[in-house]
Amino acid sequence: MERPVSQNIYDTPEFFERYSQMARSVYGLDGAPEWPAIQAMLPDLTGNQVVDLGCGFGWFARWARAQGAASVLGLDLSEKMLARARAETDDPAIQYRIADLETLELPERAFDFAYSSLAFHYIVDFGRLMRTVFQALRPGSQFVFTIEHPIYMASMRPDWLIDEEGRRVWPVDHYAIEGSRTTDWLAPGIVKHHRMLATTVNTLIEVGFSIRQLFEWYPTAEQLEAQPALADELDRPMMLLVAAQR
Amino acid sequence: MERPVSQNIYDTPEFFERYSQMARSVYGLDGAPEWPAIQAMLPDLTGNQVVDLGCGFGWFARWARAQGAASVLGLDLSEKMLARARAETDDPAIQYRIADLETLELPERAFDFAYSSLAFHYIVDFGRLMRTVFQALRPGSQFVFTIEHPIYMASMRPDWLIDEEGRRVWPVDHYAIEGSRTTDWLAPGIVKHHRMLATTVNTLIEVGFSIRQLFEWYPTAEQLEAQPALADELDRPMMLLVAAQR
Repeated sequence: MERPVSQNIYDTPEFFERYSQMARSVYGLDGAPEWPAIQAMLPDLTGNQVVDLGCGFGWFARWARAQGAASVLGLDLSEKMLARARAETDDPAIQYRIADLETLELPERAFDFAYSSLAFHYIVDFGRLMRTVFQALRPGSQFVFTIEHPIYMASMRPDWLIDEEGRRVWPVDHYAIEGSRTTDWLAPGIVKHHRMLATTVNTLIEVGFSIRQLFEWYPTAEQLEAQPALADELDRPMMLLVAAQR
Repeated sequence: MERPVSQNIYDTPEFFERYSQMARSVYGLDGAPEWPAIQAMLPDLTGNQVVDLGCGFGWFARWARAQGAASVLGLDLSEKMLARARAETDDPAIQYRIADLETLELPERAFDFAYSSLAFHYIVDFGRLMRTVFQALRPGSQFVFTIEHPIYMASMRPDWLIDEEGRRVWPVDHYAIEGSRTTDWLAPGIVKHHRMLATTVNTLIEVGFSIRQLFEWYPTAEQLEAQPALADELDRPMMLLVAAQR
């Protein structure tokens, strides 16, 4: 059986251009409203060997080093993103490497912490990837990642609806039908892979992780005041944050 | 501070009459389409001391005894339900007791298995109840329960919507706004308490449980063929099944 190969949308010029203009690309971690909540889930990284799955421009890798991580291996499918990531550091303890998470192999018990931000919802074979991450972590290690929330992804037409009484709601349909969802986000025809929340949790448990915490991300009162558009996130979660432990 | 006291809807004549006519009340466990999935989550009950939180007519209590449980304590808020439960068994190893899960106290390390079906979404103080269950279980014991799924409960108007293109979707809104939801189900003004899925999971972990498995219930192909109306459950989950371990 052939392994799935990821769609490399990030290297298409149109997508890359638009992605580069997003707040999280311009301002880095502080441009992502979920970052304070992720930070609250992170362990002390001092002395850790860290792997970042879908490292993008390398913001997290550089931050982890500033927190005292011994080394960071940043993996990404996009040559363009890695080129920018490499241009922004001369830290020899940060290594960037091209990798398709669908076919990734990692050495056994080589890392103390694994991280991933908004990458796994592109993955077809989530179970394979979780087994790969599990065996690559030393026992006791933590693993924190974010994905698009299945409530956000499930529908075949994932966009706000207005009901007869003028109330705005988020549609859910096909929740139990896992598989690809094609949407237009920054560019047409982006393929993501919907999984039930239970599947994400059960897959982690089946490969050996224990669940430490979930966060169906929503903004704080202060964030809402500063960015009123984040009120959308109170109506339906767009992101799921997961903390697990080997 | 006063403790919340549960709304006792089951003892209002209209509600009780209608509830008694539901398939799960007439046919027992086999009348509940989620029962085969619950069964698959259950441990061997042989010799176990079991507590059933919200035991209703006592179907599970009698089933657990038939599986070899040493004893079952069935707890419910409804006098009427317990009266029928008591009338249907003369098994001295089954005890039924009136209890409000909001104020429940249980002896320490007295049970080997805890069970609850579709009761906890009526509970205001879920954390208190989970602490009570945790301390009442012996170390290593399992805990299986079902609740209404938060996707089903979150909306202020939880009913199917038809979009402009004629597609039927389930509305989600106010997902991150936890608290009471008043609906008309069998009788008007039923008050339930919406919690995010993450809150249910995190509360279990915080009190000391580890998560074994989640199931956002949907029917098998055979169930769908026998009961086509269950296709609703593929579009949006109505029930969440949780297996945890002390």
